[in-house]
Amino acid sequence: MDIIAAKRDHRRLTDTQIDWVIDAYTRGVVAEEQMAALAMAVYLNGLDRAETSRWTAAMVNSGTTLDFSDLGKATTDKHSTGGVGDKITLALTPLVASFGVAVPQLSGRGLGHTGGTLDKLESISGWSAQLTPAQMRAVLYRVGGVICAAGADLAPADRRLYALRDVTGTVESVPLIASSIMSKKIAEGTSSLVLDVKVGSGAFMKTREDARLLAETMVAIGQDAGLRTTALLTDMTRPLGRTIGNALEVREAVEVLAGGGPADVVELTVALAREMLTLAGLPDADPATALADGSAMDSWRAMIAAQGGDPDAALPTASCTHDVVADRDGYLVRADALGFGVASWRLGAGRARKEDPVQAAAGIELPVVVGEPVRAGQTLFTLHTDEPARLDRALAALDGAWKVAPGDSGEPPAARESVILERIGG
Amino acid sequence: MDIIAAKRDHRRLTDTQIDWVIDAYTRGVVAEEQMAALAMAVYLNGLDRAETSRWTAAMVNSGTTLDFSDLGKATTDKHSTGGVGDKITLALTPLVASFGVAVPQLSGRGLGHTGGTLDKLESISGWSAQLTPAQMRAVLYRVGGVICAAGADLAPADRRLYALRDVTGTVESVPLIASSIMSKKIAEGTSSLVLDVKVGSGAFMKTREDARLLAETMVAIGQDAGLRTTALLTDMTRPLGRTIGNALEVREAVEVLAGGGPADVVELTVALAREMLTLAGLPDADPATALADGSAMDSWRAMIAAQGGDPDAALPTASCTHDVVADRDGYLVRADALGFGVASWRLGAGRARKEDPVQAAAGIELPVVVGEPVRAGQTLFTLHTDEPARLDRALAALDGAWKVAPGDSGEPPAARESVILERIGG
Repeated sequence: MDIIAAKRDHRRLTDTQIDWVIDAYTRGVVAEEQMAALAMAVYLNGLDRAETSRWTAAMVNSGTTLDFSDLGKATTDKHSTGGVGDKITLALTPLVASFGVAVPQLSGRGLGHTGGTLDKLESISGWSAQLTPAQMRAVLYRVGGVICAAGADLAPADRRLYALRDVTGTVESVPLIASSIMSKKIAEGTSSLVLDVKVGSGAFMKTREDARLLAETMVAIGQDAGLRTTALLTDMTRPLGRTIGNALEVREAVEVLAGGGPADVVELTVALAREMLTLAGLPDADPATALADGSAMDSWRAMIAAQGGDPDAALPTASCTHDVVADRDGYLVRADALGFGVASWRLGAGRARKEDPVQAAAGIELPVVVGEPVRAGQTLFTLHTDEPARLDRALAALDGAWKVAPGDSGEPPAARESVILERIGG
Repeated sequence: MDIIAAKRDHRRLTDTQIDWVIDAYTRGVVAEEQMAALAMAVYLNGLDRAETSRWTAAMVNSGTTLDFSDLGKATTDKHSTGGVGDKITLALTPLVASFGVAVPQLSGRGLGHTGGTLDKLESISGWSAQLTPAQMRAVLYRVGGVICAAGADLAPADRRLYALRDVTGTVESVPLIASSIMSKKIAEGTSSLVLDVKVGSGAFMKTREDARLLAETMVAIGQDAGLRTTALLTDMTRPLGRTIGNALEVREAVEVLAGGGPADVVELTVALAREMLTLAGLPDADPATALADGSAMDSWRAMIAAQGGDPDAALPTASCTHDVVADRDGYLVRADALGFGVASWRLGAGRARKEDPVQAAAGIELPVVVGEPVRAGQTLFTLHTDEPARLDRALAALDGAWKVAPGDSGEPPAARESVILERIGG
């Protein structure tokens, strides 16, 4: 009660108060409705840097923490705030691991219009996201890269608090978002971290200013926790790459590992790898060579196999596809990330409720991306689903989400210079 | 979720949103943690007059309402925001009823340092606070005054919401306090209402400004609900009258009904009776005569007997008393309402938890009140309890709560001119 009243009345919470309330909430001594009131008070009145870092530490301390300091390898990790077509983790993890660095990547599942790394990997036959800490450690030691689900005992306070915030209108609070993300990353035992903070319609943060504030808050928490942390703000006004979905995105990630893939995916993968390798003590390593010479692909195959997956198995394909075609000549001048994300979600690639399954094969291929020329009758996008009844609502989400403009001027629309907008920290 | 977000983002709630959220909360569709988040958003961002009136109406509509319009009598009622030694309802209800007006007084129990009317009346042998609506109607018709407990089906949303606010730091919100009080009064079916809003250390509202805001908010809700409503702001810096407790306060109320009693209690009782009688259409009625000629006492006896009580039964007395005596000659210049309220509570007159019983005989007598001269060795206050072990902590609460100053100047301290500070509304 004193703690709720303090934050309600615009006072700082003391370290003791923060430690107590997070611990008591984890133990069930603080009721859900009391935490909801505190979360709304924090939403409206904020937490300063010291409070946010302490809040994060208390959530870390609410459960077990992993420690890989005795592996004999540098550790580093990446976190993305989530976007549409964001398959970066898939290629990035084995790419960085191919340099002898350990990447303990605890990932999540998709919710809403943003995909989840674990959902994507589960489209690979036999692959399992569930590893014990001992199995995780063994894969990290042997392969270097591991992508798996976080155990329920890692930052359990965050797990409960997130579920509560989700139903009480207290999700969009920068200190609460930042402490939620960072508590899991600190608990997973990495010693450095690169944050990919998405900006735009398909991202959680719609404006550059909001994204920058979130990035700066997370970098500060990382520093206060002794974790070397940097952040990139990256564009999420349009889908990343040329696929959205689960199996479709795995296919594209494999293309990148094979030295190909869409330019924006490659650019971001390489840039994040450089950041991670620098934080891990290898500032001179060149990620592009590991994509070109097959060593990143070797790491990928070993990583998938180590978790029971068959890297050679055919990926599932959808029973139904539908093409959206251009009705005029011109250029694709717009493809809105949110519209495409919602369409893919409605095709079955995402879930409405946490317990729902996802379709491995559902999603959208984008043979044409923004800035490219098109001819009337040419396929712009292909929708994939196992349930044809889903097509109508998916097409409705795409309505107005893209635009072909005539190339009257004879010039294509200005291409995006870089997917990377800004670098923060370090 | 939209409703929480609207209030969180400083937007007005629509009538439809308010009706929906109160109804859904009553039915359990809106979870406690969601209502807690909304209550905190309301606490911090407020409700305007129209929102507050609609919120109140929605709470009234969450349950059954009483209707006494067919009794053939004007109805009026009084509500006090709670104080120390506030036994006004006891004499006021039969006094007003003695003029042929119906007073359907639904009262509460004490919590914390403030007493409750029902606890006080239960010190009368045989008296019961539990009446069915039909019994209540019959007593109102025959006797005119009835003081009883509200049924659980009257404004049930308020009952749930109050319990929630109590544990989530959202009690001290003017629109939520005002709508809580007014929803019960509107549901009880009175057609006019006088509010006694206490100001000072022993009251919920510590400052005149806060009390005025609360009074104005409640008067506005009353007007918007078609209820003739006025308010008096009255002093609660010191205890009201010369007794605090349950049976002790009944004794003092009976003194007032017999034409005697302390000046401040008589003044406030008569002033509130005048307000009520005016609202009930009897602006020329003189309450003082009904106290002097015994007609108010007749109404009291009938009212107590109608609810099973014996108006002639001896009131319980405590097994243990302790006198606090003056250590010098002078004047009593201070008796802090909160200190005396807490002392009486600790003696057993109040309860720590809702389920606890109270001691009928516990409390404090104040033979000396502020402004009166005292002699060294004279009894200032007498503490009453059935549990001697409670004395120490009660005396600790009185420590520093009163002061005798020497009358060096030869003059007594300035007496309080009136217990009534201000009148609002009408």
